[in-house]
Amino acid sequence: MTKNRLEAFSDGVIAIIITIMVLEFKPPHSVEWASIKVLLPTFLCYIISYIMVAIYWGNHHHLLHTINNINSRIIWANQHLLFWLSLVPFATAWMGETNFSSLTVALYALLLNLCGIAYYILLKVIVSTGIHDQKFLLSLKKQEKKGVFSLIIYTAAIPLAFINSLISGVLFIVVAIRWLIPDKNIEKAEKNKGNKPAF
Amino acid sequence: MTKNRLEAFSDGVIAIIITIMVLEFKPPHSVEWASIKVLLPTFLCYIISYIMVAIYWGNHHHLLHTINNINSRIIWANQHLLFWLSLVPFATAWMGETNFSSLTVALYALLLNLCGIAYYILLKVIVSTGIHDQKFLLSLKKQEKKGVFSLIIYTAAIPLAFINSLISGVLFIVVAIRWLIPDKNIEKAEKNKGNKPAF
Amino acid sequence: MTKNRLEAFSDGVIAIIITIMVLEFKPPHSVEWASIKVLLPTFLCYIISYIMVAIYWGNHHHLLHTINNINSRIIWANQHLLFWLSLVPFATAWMGETNFSSLTVALYALLLNLCGIAYYILLKVIVSTGIHDQKFLLSLKKQEKKGVFSLIIYTAAIPLAFINSLISGVLFIVVAIRWLIPDKNIEKAEKNKGNKPAF
Amino acid sequence: MTKNRLEAFSDGVIAIIITIMVLEFKPPHSVEWASIKVLLPTFLCYIISYIMVAIYWGNHHHLLHTINNINSRIIWANQHLLFWLSLVPFATAWMGETNFSSLTVALYALLLNLCGIAYYILLKVIVSTGIHDQKFLLSLKKQEKKGVFSLIIYTAAIPLAFINSLISGVLFIVVAIRWLIPDKNIEKAEKNKGNKPAF
Repeated sequence: MTKNRLEAFSDGVIAIIITIMVLEFKPPHSVEWASIKVLLPTFLCYIISYIMVAIYWGNHHHLLHTINNINSRIIWANQHLLFWLSLVPFATAWMGETNFSSLTVALYALLLNLCGIAYYILLKVIVSTGIHDQKFLLSLKKQEKKGVFSLIIYTAAIPLAFINSLISGVLFIVVAIRWLIPDKNIEKAEKNKGNKPAF
Repeated sequence: MTKNRLEAFSDGVIAIIITIMVLEFKPPHSVEWASIKVLLPTFLCYIISYIMVAIYWGNHHHLLHTINNINSRIIWANQHLLFWLSLVPFATAWMGETNFSSLTVALYALLLNLCGIAYYILLKVIVSTGIHDQKFLLSLKKQEKKGVFSLIIYTAAIPLAFINSLISGVLFIVVAIRWLIPDKNIEKAEKNKGNKPAF
Repeated sequence: MTKNRLEAFSDGVIAIIITIMVLEFKPPHSVEWASIKVLLPTFLCYIISYIMVAIYWGNHHHLLHTINNINSRIIWANQHLLFWLSLVPFATAWMGETNFSSLTVALYALLLNLCGIAYYILLKVIVSTGIHDQKFLLSLKKQEKKGVFSLIIYTAAIPLAFINSLISGVLFIVVAIRWLIPDKNIEKAEKNKGNKPAF
Repeated sequence: MTKNRLEAFSDGVIAIIITIMVLEFKPPHSVEWASIKVLLPTFLCYIISYIMVAIYWGNHHHLLHTINNINSRIIWANQHLLFWLSLVPFATAWMGETNFSSLTVALYALLLNLCGIAYYILLKVIVSTGIHDQKFLLSLKKQEKKGVFSLIIYTAAIPLAFINSLISGVLFIVVAIRWLIPDKNIEKAEKNKGNKPAF
């Protein structure tokens, strides 16, 4: 029951984060190609960030699904995650406006890193409150492994942005794909065992 | 149970989309007719987009009503739909600011098309997960037919915007009316059969 | 069950409406009295509109409390109400920015009128779907009476704004007080009858 | 049941408040240190306000957890609290933009004071509607004590801002720590008594 309100608040914050990014697109006053072209990097950044935040929502959804009771440690680990996620629109807009300058791409990679660490902490806090369902523990272990993989890639993306922003961009996409694909495998595995999909 | 959170997140995103459009109205600093007149096309665009998004909310509501379990395919088909819907405020503002220039009206028609396709995909994914209630399948079939009709009209509206923006505008209204009217018929039919309205 | 989603969507929209108004306050770049003074009318407008929207939320809450099933007529009457409410931040900002100029105050009164009519329509649609609880019918009758009173006052406030904006401002406050006070009486009456407060 | 909607509305408003603050960060158009440096006070203000609003959400969550029925007094005490909280993004942005000028810091302290008083009123209204669970009464007593402590500190921070803004800043952090730490103690105490954590 109380969990619902934590979910509802997180849903609200994530829904706002994902939609206020679009407020950064100021419609150009003319319809000439020159003024449209300026928007393209911002639009590309929006797509990347939309997918990133959508993955977080999916994982968050899955993670909170596993628990029944919450305590203030979970509440604050969750607020900590939402704090870093709330900075995504700013970092996205900055990256787009400076046309993927090395510094802003590196800061974006750093921010994704901080989001990833915050998610990892939340996961650990939730596991430490005691989950007894073995299937969920297994699926959280897989989430954890993917999380560590993401953190390594994001950390690499920080210095690499100063060589070429494109390398970091590709790494962001690699992480996104890594999260998008295996979720299906988990569900299929669960289905084969005759269980309903976890989420 | 888990469906609720997908609904809540979608409600949040759609609620924000429908209300941030109004942020585009910058109140004029004077009260002279000249400065008010500039707002009129933006206001007209707002009304059209408000109705469009409201129709999506109604249909989305109806569609998710039919299912009990969700899986990650449904989650991502839904995120995909929300992505295109999230661009509606931008396209609306651009169309209004350029006073219905052909290019922006064509892009608006394209965006409605992409929203329509995303909704169609979501509908197909949901039907493919297995719905056994014949009545709902029938009502989704009707939604599908109307969806295909909308896509044809939107596709026609893209080139026609370059002849005259007004033609496309009329087509948008035709689609809106097509969605608004028959919903009542479905409900009446259901009522006559002695069932409670579907939504 | 389905009613919950209509409530959740309305809550989201009203929550956004009530909070985006504050986005209109651009913090002045200096701390001199001259730049602060400019904000005062905007702040005053914010207080009035906040109370107005809060009253709508309370009444909406009460109104939907009385029903179990919704149909598409209720959905669209509700969307219609939310449409006019969504224009409140715009009208509020305009009134504040022009320092309560007659035209903007008259438009604000007109908008409150349109919100009031939309609410009245929603109330009528909900009553017409059949409410059998006599107590709620009685309380809705009282809401209806107060609604008609508000519409008369708002209508008077439109031309009176051109004589003096202050008169209209006082009328807005009169309506607000009319809605705030008697709600308690209803609750007390219900309590005296040994019933729990309706909301 | 009805309580849920008050919670949902409050969650929506608080979620928006906490995330629109980030809209104040306008990404600088360049990546030079000079243009980044300007953002730092705004960022620091954001962190402080984020924690403040997050604490309110946690306490609000806890407070409403204790009740089953709501009445219009609770609704309006809650709206009153949300009103002052809704001004936090404005005060935060102003403080950041003027680089912690004494006047804006004093106003921020005043606003936190008004939020604190509004919370205190809500707490009193809820207690007066009759809570019979002794454990919750005890935990609310502790909340009340911390609330009075906060009000005293905030009141002191108003004149002290004119001596040095930093003193007030430190006081804000002291209050935040005061709220963050002891919540855990309450939970531990409850746990030791063999009860589940209150929230």
